[in-house]
Amino acid sequence: MPKIVDHDKQRVLVAEAAWRVIRRNGMEQASVRNIAEEAGISVGSMRHYFSTQSELLLYAMNLVSERVTSRIQRMTFDGPPMEDMKRLLLELMPNTDEKMAEMEVWYAFTAKSKTDPALKKLADTVYNDIRRAVEIVITSLTKLELFRPDLNQALEIERLYALVDGLAIHAVLRPDQVTSELMDKALTLHLNSLCVRQ
Amino acid sequence: MPKIVDHDKQRVLVAEAAWRVIRRNGMEQASVRNIAEEAGISVGSMRHYFSTQSELLLYAMNLVSERVTSRIQRMTFDGPPMEDMKRLLLELMPNTDEKMAEMEVWYAFTAKSKTDPALKKLADTVYNDIRRAVEIVITSLTKLELFRPDLNQALEIERLYALVDGLAIHAVLRPDQVTSELMDKALTLHLNSLCVRQ
Repeated sequence: MPKIVDHDKQRVLVAEAAWRVIRRNGMEQASVRNIAEEAGISVGSMRHYFSTQSELLLYAMNLVSERVTSRIQRMTFDGPPMEDMKRLLLELMPNTDEKMAEMEVWYAFTAKSKTDPALKKLADTVYNDIRRAVEIVITSLTKLELFRPDLNQALEIERLYALVDGLAIHAVLRPDQVTSELMDKALTLHLNSLCVRQ
Repeated sequence: MPKIVDHDKQRVLVAEAAWRVIRRNGMEQASVRNIAEEAGISVGSMRHYFSTQSELLLYAMNLVSERVTSRIQRMTFDGPPMEDMKRLLLELMPNTDEKMAEMEVWYAFTAKSKTDPALKKLADTVYNDIRRAVEIVITSLTKLELFRPDLNQALEIERLYALVDGLAIHAVLRPDQVTSELMDKALTLHLNSLCVRQ
């Protein structure tokens, strides 16, 4: 079914064009017309791929999440546990050009999600998925008897999750100040502070 | 000069109307026309207050920052130092309806600031101001000989700042999950973890 494959491929190309428009000109400029122009196709043929602008934006937002998920699913976790956990959390942070681009687009989409129910539903799902990853880190530390027994698991999940997202957003807003090295250092320090001294 | 006073008052009313449009309908709907309608004045008379939409949005963004600053300037710090520092940092978090409204609007403005140089300049200034407040907390802990000598001041400033903003943004995105109580608990825990045991 080569036609279907092409159709899906074209949808991805249009979504990536939407990302570029959003990053360069802002969400306000993400009209079907501007995205068609960026993708190099006619406004008329956009209808073959997306019925509405809302459908297109939801698809483009979901594609960010799929890219992140697929990268995490391709990771192997067979190193020292603390290193593996740190790598998992760092994977969620914008420490490469590709991830910075994704995070910038994601930031714009979550801002828009406050007033768009379809985007909000997706934003909430992804929020929960990442929270679950952070929860796995904390429960793994506990199983490994590394987690400090005087700490509260539930509270530490929220604190670690807030730190991860806070660093990521600071890196998006101020890449000059919050560098990859700083994110790595802050995260390492934080994970160590959750563990018993060895 | 009652006329000038009225003029300034009217600009504030228009900016607050812009906030309501942004919160309810998103930044994409923050046109001069929609904001005029929300403010209950004619599109024609908007020209008396703001020459362009950009000028209006910059003013509306700046008004958020002024409100926060003026609240902090009105605070008195004469309690136990740890309590004072916690109160200062909690003041930056959306734990009241008024502050939640401001934070939601601020989130929308910072997302837009990525592609708008005038908003970006303001966003950077405010980023630096809040970083300075966090820095004062850490240096005060040090002066009071409460700050753990095994910790790195510069890194702890970034970690605390990321935590504060991460919690604030999670509260904006998921007020059902990140409540005022949780922000308070996470912040208390974090500040205590920076201090020597007493």
